[in-house]
Amino acid sequence: MFKIQTDLALETRELVQKGLGREIEGVEVEERKEFDDKIKITKVKINSIKGEAILQKPMGNYITIEADGLRDEDFEVQEQVSKILADELESLINVSQKSTVLVVGLGNWNVTPDSLGPKVVSKVLITRHLFEFVPEKVKDRRIRSVCAISPGVLGITGIETSEIISGIVHRIHPDLIIAIDALASRRLERISTAIQIADTGIVPGSGIGNERKGITKDTVGVPVVAIGVPMVVDAAIIANDAIDLLLERLKNETDRSSPLYMLLESIPDEDRFNLIKEVIFPYYGNLFVTPKDIDRIVENISTVIADGINKAIHPEVKENEEYRYVN
Amino acid sequence: MFKIQTDLALETRELVQKGLGREIEGVEVEERKEFDDKIKITKVKINSIKGEAILQKPMGNYITIEADGLRDEDFEVQEQVSKILADELESLINVSQKSTVLVVGLGNWNVTPDSLGPKVVSKVLITRHLFEFVPEKVKDRRIRSVCAISPGVLGITGIETSEIISGIVHRIHPDLIIAIDALASRRLERISTAIQIADTGIVPGSGIGNERKGITKDTVGVPVVAIGVPMVVDAAIIANDAIDLLLERLKNETDRSSPLYMLLESIPDEDRFNLIKEVIFPYYGNLFVTPKDIDRIVENISTVIADGINKAIHPEVKENEEYRYVN
Amino acid sequence: MFKIQTDLALETRELVQKGLGREIEGVEVEERKEFDDKIKITKVKINSIKGEAILQKPMGNYITIEADGLRDEDFEVQEQVSKILADELESLINVSQKSTVLVVGLGNWNVTPDSLGPKVVSKVLITRHLFEFVPEKVKDRRIRSVCAISPGVLGITGIETSEIISGIVHRIHPDLIIAIDALASRRLERISTAIQIADTGIVPGSGIGNERKGITKDTVGVPVVAIGVPMVVDAAIIANDAIDLLLERLKNETDRSSPLYMLLESIPDEDRFNLIKEVIFPYYGNLFVTPKDIDRIVENISTVIADGINKAIHPEVKENEEYRYVN
Amino acid sequence: MFKIQTDLALETRELVQKGLGREIEGVEVEERKEFDDKIKITKVKINSIKGEAILQKPMGNYITIEADGLRDEDFEVQEQVSKILADELESLINVSQKSTVLVVGLGNWNVTPDSLGPKVVSKVLITRHLFEFVPEKVKDRRIRSVCAISPGVLGITGIETSEIISGIVHRIHPDLIIAIDALASRRLERISTAIQIADTGIVPGSGIGNERKGITKDTVGVPVVAIGVPMVVDAAIIANDAIDLLLERLKNETDRSSPLYMLLESIPDEDRFNLIKEVIFPYYGNLFVTPKDIDRIVENISTVIADGINKAIHPEVKENEEYRYVN
Repeated sequence: MFKIQTDLALETRELVQKGLGREIEGVEVEERKEFDDKIKITKVKINSIKGEAILQKPMGNYITIEADGLRDEDFEVQEQVSKILADELESLINVSQKSTVLVVGLGNWNVTPDSLGPKVVSKVLITRHLFEFVPEKVKDRRIRSVCAISPGVLGITGIETSEIISGIVHRIHPDLIIAIDALASRRLERISTAIQIADTGIVPGSGIGNERKGITKDTVGVPVVAIGVPMVVDAAIIANDAIDLLLERLKNETDRSSPLYMLLESIPDEDRFNLIKEVIFPYYGNLFVTPKDIDRIVENISTVIADGINKAIHPEVKENEEYRYVN
Repeated sequence: MFKIQTDLALETRELVQKGLGREIEGVEVEERKEFDDKIKITKVKINSIKGEAILQKPMGNYITIEADGLRDEDFEVQEQVSKILADELESLINVSQKSTVLVVGLGNWNVTPDSLGPKVVSKVLITRHLFEFVPEKVKDRRIRSVCAISPGVLGITGIETSEIISGIVHRIHPDLIIAIDALASRRLERISTAIQIADTGIVPGSGIGNERKGITKDTVGVPVVAIGVPMVVDAAIIANDAIDLLLERLKNETDRSSPLYMLLESIPDEDRFNLIKEVIFPYYGNLFVTPKDIDRIVENISTVIADGINKAIHPEVKENEEYRYVN
Repeated sequence: MFKIQTDLALETRELVQKGLGREIEGVEVEERKEFDDKIKITKVKINSIKGEAILQKPMGNYITIEADGLRDEDFEVQEQVSKILADELESLINVSQKSTVLVVGLGNWNVTPDSLGPKVVSKVLITRHLFEFVPEKVKDRRIRSVCAISPGVLGITGIETSEIISGIVHRIHPDLIIAIDALASRRLERISTAIQIADTGIVPGSGIGNERKGITKDTVGVPVVAIGVPMVVDAAIIANDAIDLLLERLKNETDRSSPLYMLLESIPDEDRFNLIKEVIFPYYGNLFVTPKDIDRIVENISTVIADGINKAIHPEVKENEEYRYVN
Repeated sequence: MFKIQTDLALETRELVQKGLGREIEGVEVEERKEFDDKIKITKVKINSIKGEAILQKPMGNYITIEADGLRDEDFEVQEQVSKILADELESLINVSQKSTVLVVGLGNWNVTPDSLGPKVVSKVLITRHLFEFVPEKVKDRRIRSVCAISPGVLGITGIETSEIISGIVHRIHPDLIIAIDALASRRLERISTAIQIADTGIVPGSGIGNERKGITKDTVGVPVVAIGVPMVVDAAIIANDAIDLLLERLKNETDRSSPLYMLLESIPDEDRFNLIKEVIFPYYGNLFVTPKDIDRIVENISTVIADGINKAIHPEVKENEEYRYVN
């Protein structure tokens, strides 16, 4: 059966709620707007097994920051979003001055929309080696110990990312992992306009790359906060949306009691799925949709996220405008 | 109205012929298969104004080499295709031992499917500077003078590619331009499996980038042979194909004389177009579909094309297996 | 004979003045310090044929901004230098609101210390295509028309850079060229700590790449302002400096009237040259010295320069802190 | 004191033997030439604690393949060297059909001469994920399970490479590691003309990056074969060589019994060291010398090494010329 894949809790909740017609049990939702309503923050908290079962996402907090200005290169919005990201990130993580944070850039640096994670990592302020080898250089500074890696995807390494990460965790014992990933969204307008922060880590099947195992506290042994941004939509969704829209339009022009209406109402899931597969042939599950200027988009959003991370972890960065020259 | 864009003469011809039900006037077509039918070569020659008008492509030769093995990493097929490409390219170009060839890598190196041209250029054997500054080094070798440039796209340079190229031509007077471009195909299965060689150059609106002016003998002053490979499909085509398939399926289940059948038959072009635009919102015309492993695909096909060009231009490369270490 | 190559007018002047023991005729020099003496600005103006002959540089203005903080990642210094660069650049260029500026990134993007020019270009705000194709988008903004190209070096293109640039100029008629180049310095401590702005363009033999022709008003037809930063030192200078230091030390320990002193004093230039060539074998003229963390250095200094250029050209950028998200 | 650093056992042996005037105890040396004497293979076997102490390298086998043709782009020599590398590598490694090999690309991909390891990794045939997830695809093929990683350097990750590698080993249990690294040589003419294979792994202080811990069976738990190619020379060696040459020349012109000769003979090590440090200021230990066309050199030699590795591990590649299209 055709099942819409989305990595955004926000979208899962939309889909489910639309079906239910009311708020979902075991799920708390909180929304606010900032900066002249140009930025919308939605917090979805799944706080019960029930909510977990309904939304098909693990219990935990999912914060989404949405702003069209992220796509439209509104510099002021970008600046604000990086500050909000820093604040929300701080609210989720629980690190002391002595903590070590491991930042993980997931995804394939050779495929533009999937290069978000590695791009962010290249812009994050790395300090762990200073704490280890030249502690005198950092002892009076308001920065924390940060290390990072962009391990590459399964096709490049032949190793599952979760194995690489848990191996490294086993050696260096970070207190927290922040993992950045390019996501697949259910809606085109969310490409590069939504940033999701989740304290549940990366669950299996997230991201463009669809790793088999997740990167969560269970698999790697330390808390994992995931930051994700939709960068692509599965091409199958385009086909599915076209089918939906056409059916809706035909139904609008048809008498509700006619056999035609019945036909339009009753297309079996399997038929729909086969139809989509035929459109997507020979690439089912491996074909994605992305905007032409995805290079510019990744460049911009990776700066916003790296800024947010740097501010959330290092008080010194938060207080100092000149840190723009980091990286 | 929704119009299917394709850069392949092969596909335009298919579409038109399907409509006509017979061969097109003013167009000669020749097909052959090689290497146990694993490689298909189609030559479309538009030899009259009439053919030009019908196919909406300028008069000239369009040679397409098709092989699924190009996508499936069949090394033997890749090797054969590079040889056939070399031979077909030689048949189209007319260069003496003293000629200078300018190879142009079109497209955006920061967007994976659009990086084909620059990738090919980076693997082509460059020799013009030797002929200019150290002629004694090349005088007894069976190589020709080759130079190359990957100018970047409008969004990166702010200059139309045709202006950059014609400026350079004005200064260095090459005898021939070979321009490599990633194309938009009409069919997913042609992504990376078809190589088109055309002696008509790059016409406006070709390629992923949609430059406004073409790169042809008219615009740059010297003959231009274009080598193109489909790397993406416009996302609108996915929506359109889904609509077509659904309508066809509904018609199959409907009595030809029923009002429903009439309705399905008579969807106005404008409605269809609006429907597609709604699916693709907010990205109409700027959204493409590409396979997940596009990085590996570009890497492979760029080697095949660069090999073909090196063999076609330099007899020394054609005769010498060890030239694999070029680049 | 061994001749010390330097692209900095500042260094040529130092060398000549040290020989002369007094200020050079036909050359005006002005120095100032800023930001707690952390930044030093030196203006060398060659205003006569005589000065030109003595300094072996064309008549014109050479402004050098020096700050150790550029190497030491002092973010506040970087911020200040970008502002000073913007001001000094504005003082040299003469552009109206309607002018078009072509920014040229010289050097080889595949060789880290030589990639400065292309890196800067990738961070400059490009707008010419907006003025050409969507003028309504820019008509009320305080920005100017800017285009850019990083043509690549002779070994990559087979074409001299000056030919590519003058070809493009011939087509698009910019009012001004700003060319950025990685320079060879005479002193290690100047690597990445000095930025030279010269309104004389790029003269032959400048930069790491040693193009044969320059990029000047004479060769390309429009005014050229060059921005250069030392990124390497010729390895021969290391050998030469070691010889100098050893000779000096030996002389210090020797009686001025002894035959030994005579010997030390009288090493023929040719012998010294041969000695250096022997040390550098088999790479004379093609071997450079560069710091290990040159990647970080290029990344930082390219941001400072791109910021300075963006501020100098676009009033809107100068007035708006959020433009940090430009890239 | 100034101590010449070299990563080549060949060079250490040369230095020591020159001092001793005879063969070194506990060290076996075997030399042969191939391909019309264009390729020289030297095997240095340190087989005792004594040899270990004298050469300051751990006991084991060091095979060096030298050929000027590697630098001079002699395609036939490159082809031959890749075959010899494959054979010599096979002689050192001991893997069964069921073994898993982890290839590690050491070094910094952002610094051209240090990018050799990551470049090689990008050209190695990766198969472990096929064995894990689609075993039916590989069961009848003559290939082995290979995975790979390029972890990045300390300044990029904040983590010592040996920790990353041993963490991964702990999870995936490879039978063998092949680690590729750019080396520092003692002699300019060895840059890119010598390939060393050592079954002792990467010892601390090797390579351009000077990691503190090595990557050896002791530190990571599985056998490590290191493949290294000199890509740089420490700039201090250039200064030291210039001093040596000048002193020698002065001595040649001086009477052996004169006080001058005494002076030249007796320069204290510390003085020499200070002199070198003065020349190299402010970069002692962090400044290297590399040829201008290092990008081309790295591209070529990385193909030779990746070919050698692919042939040594996968019988299928060894037997099949078309495998050139791998990567």
